[in-house]
Amino acid sequence: MTDKENIKKTGGSDLMDKVVSLCKRRGFIFPGSEIYGGLQNSWDYGPLGAELKKNIKDEWWNRFVRQRSDMVGLDAALIMNPKVWEASGHLATFNDPLVECKKCHARYRADQTPGLAYSVEKLSTGIETKHLAVAQGTKCASCGEIWFLGKTLESPKQFNLMLKTFLGPAQEQANTVYFRPEIAQAMFVNFKNVLDTSRKRLPFGIASQGSAFRNEITPGNFIFRTREFDLMEFEYFINPKDWEKTFEYWLTEMKRWLHDLGVTSEHLHFVEVSKEDRAHYSQRTVDVEYDYPFGQKELYGLAYRGDFDLKSHAEKSGADLTYTDPEDQKNKFIPHVIEPSFGLNRSILVALLEAYDEEKIAGDEEDVRVVMRFPKWVAPVKVAILPLSKKDELAVIAKPLYAHLSKLFVCDYDETQSIGKRYRRQDEIGTPYCVTVDFETIADKSVTVRDRDTMKQERVLIAELDRYLSGKLTS
Amino acid sequence: MTDKENIKKTGGSDLMDKVVSLCKRRGFIFPGSEIYGGLQNSWDYGPLGAELKKNIKDEWWNRFVRQRSDMVGLDAALIMNPKVWEASGHLATFNDPLVECKKCHARYRADQTPGLAYSVEKLSTGIETKHLAVAQGTKCASCGEIWFLGKTLESPKQFNLMLKTFLGPAQEQANTVYFRPEIAQAMFVNFKNVLDTSRKRLPFGIASQGSAFRNEITPGNFIFRTREFDLMEFEYFINPKDWEKTFEYWLTEMKRWLHDLGVTSEHLHFVEVSKEDRAHYSQRTVDVEYDYPFGQKELYGLAYRGDFDLKSHAEKSGADLTYTDPEDQKNKFIPHVIEPSFGLNRSILVALLEAYDEEKIAGDEEDVRVVMRFPKWVAPVKVAILPLSKKDELAVIAKPLYAHLSKLFVCDYDETQSIGKRYRRQDEIGTPYCVTVDFETIADKSVTVRDRDTMKQERVLIAELDRYLSGKLTS
Repeated sequence: MTDKENIKKTGGSDLMDKVVSLCKRRGFIFPGSEIYGGLQNSWDYGPLGAELKKNIKDEWWNRFVRQRSDMVGLDAALIMNPKVWEASGHLATFNDPLVECKKCHARYRADQTPGLAYSVEKLSTGIETKHLAVAQGTKCASCGEIWFLGKTLESPKQFNLMLKTFLGPAQEQANTVYFRPEIAQAMFVNFKNVLDTSRKRLPFGIASQGSAFRNEITPGNFIFRTREFDLMEFEYFINPKDWEKTFEYWLTEMKRWLHDLGVTSEHLHFVEVSKEDRAHYSQRTVDVEYDYPFGQKELYGLAYRGDFDLKSHAEKSGADLTYTDPEDQKNKFIPHVIEPSFGLNRSILVALLEAYDEEKIAGDEEDVRVVMRFPKWVAPVKVAILPLSKKDELAVIAKPLYAHLSKLFVCDYDETQSIGKRYRRQDEIGTPYCVTVDFETIADKSVTVRDRDTMKQERVLIAELDRYLSGKLTS
Repeated sequence: MTDKENIKKTGGSDLMDKVVSLCKRRGFIFPGSEIYGGLQNSWDYGPLGAELKKNIKDEWWNRFVRQRSDMVGLDAALIMNPKVWEASGHLATFNDPLVECKKCHARYRADQTPGLAYSVEKLSTGIETKHLAVAQGTKCASCGEIWFLGKTLESPKQFNLMLKTFLGPAQEQANTVYFRPEIAQAMFVNFKNVLDTSRKRLPFGIASQGSAFRNEITPGNFIFRTREFDLMEFEYFINPKDWEKTFEYWLTEMKRWLHDLGVTSEHLHFVEVSKEDRAHYSQRTVDVEYDYPFGQKELYGLAYRGDFDLKSHAEKSGADLTYTDPEDQKNKFIPHVIEPSFGLNRSILVALLEAYDEEKIAGDEEDVRVVMRFPKWVAPVKVAILPLSKKDELAVIAKPLYAHLSKLFVCDYDETQSIGKRYRRQDEIGTPYCVTVDFETIADKSVTVRDRDTMKQERVLIAELDRYLSGKLTS
């Protein structure tokens, strides 16, 4: 075993650049539509990224849905009746304030553009007043025009963030629909159907995974903010008297999940959202933030939403969304909701950032080992089968071994270049175990198993390999 | 054991109605946005439907991607650069012909409306001429106006089927993008990135699962035709000399998959598409059709697409999409493609239709048992744990048993109503095994295991239950 020195640089754009570059080079994540010059920060998950994403989705579904008697799944349409977005308030209030340069007509976020100071004042009557100030000498980043409010810069206008489209043969107002900007509403709208058919009793949850869409003015930071993204969420329905302990319970479960995803607790911040910043119906909200290389920003969220959502849908739709207490049939009420929300793409991003590591090998000035230290369940490939050479006498052992192990784990088979280079390639994609078939294997029916993290090698009988690897990979 | 008589009515709207009704009643599939009056044939997958859908997706991914060394996955963005749809021809030709009633402005498919005869004549020059004839006395289904072409009925216009939206803050032509109408193009556009990073050699495939969107004028027949739908496909890249044997190979694999999904071969039709009806670049296309209750219609497809797609993207994007033969570096060519396409929602529909069964139990005039005879791997719930009564002395055995088995299989726990009713409920959702904990269990540490199909009951020691069920469920 060699001495190793950890030289990973945490924080800073250096780490981000290295992860983005590795993702492209190894087939985790490619720029979307790249041969056509891309499309405004859209991304495609390549062979390894698709496996990584599926591992995280599947583990979440197994843990929170399949292995729990108090949770059921839902897989809903991406386009819902527009009345849903009226009831949820998204049509009226899911807006960004935009200003427009009068010369070149470029538009900017009033609240996020250097040189502009934007604020919203909430009066006690509930009316909001918006203020915009422009610092002297602020120029349009697009055309260079110096901005004066009302003269060369238009006042802020509200811009709805939902992506709209038109169903049916006529592009008219009547056919305008929206791609969902969040996945929660489908769980509220289906509450009664789920309750009636699953016959669950409080407390229970409805869980979903899937795409959501927001017409972000400034997408960016790799997969951190994109216009289409994936969420994993559940709405956990409770008797209001239980909200505090349920909130604590799910906060603990979210921490456990993040730990299992490989996230260092020092990089996490559980920010209690103050009363002024919370939605009016929420008595407690925690933003789960992470130290990304580009700053401390949102990763997950946990909110107590009261009965706001079900109540609003009951009023707007006329449907009866009450729950009858089975112990006391006279006690009918609208359940309250605790909502733990997990961004899937951000889960992938933090898994990549946390896993990235560089090691300097002692005695080799030049040599730096890049290794993705994914938790084993997260790793896209679990086992690589590497015959020492391409010779037939090794292939007749290695190929059937690959075929057999592939039924148990996601495996890779690689026979090109030196064994050292192949080990490094597997390190870079985070494969926990490499199995080398060499010329001694022919005689001793054993293979060398190399551990990604320790680089230790062990000789294991082929007959014992299933049990050896299963034990290691499920621990 | 009771004598049973199979009384399933195959074909006809009767079967379809029964399946749609069972799906709603048991929580497989609900009308989308139902509390708001639905949304034009959109559907949400409820607790059991979400599991069924995931089982089919996962088995497909395991079989065709994870367990094969010649296949890799891709999970691409739903919105691509519009140039992709220029290159693929979708912007120019992915159209339906629509006519408009001049009085009420309702629009209809020229080729699918009773009383209208629409045809397209292809001249040898490649130019197409369209003909429309209106039968005397044909009325608008919406306003009742009698149609005369050019007077009360507008001539057909081409209507593009892609769902469009606008990215960025301005709703202008420059920002118009389309939700993908198929998932294949992402695999072609990412071909070079996948080839470079995975270092695969021909033959190999890129596989995808995901949503696609088409602005169908007449969606309908439950989940058969909807405006958003899910596809599972791969593009299998080959040396052109191998196309015939590769085509045969994948045709056989598709048949094997359909068999394993529980589809009776008598209900399937493998229709060779004639030269006149094939795309000009395809030398062979097979439509896989199924006898739905509403007629023989498309289920899957298998097409040899030649080098049409990669060639077109290479020309339009300027990217080099050639492959270098590793045996002969001078031999560079654009790979040809075999494309097996599996509709996911139609897979679910045929799985439901094939599984639905009714049995009359001898000696009981009234009693009809409805049972969903899913293949075991398809069934949303594998094992139901049913304590004979709600009494604590059974719960202390049944609940830990449920918790334990839930780690191995998707399980259900049900303690309400008579055991007979609970068996029937599990039959209706297709649960292969019911495990009953009764008062004898306390003494003999055994449970009764009931088989869904035979209704036979066996007494099994709790200590042996894992092995017993694993053996049954993986056979």
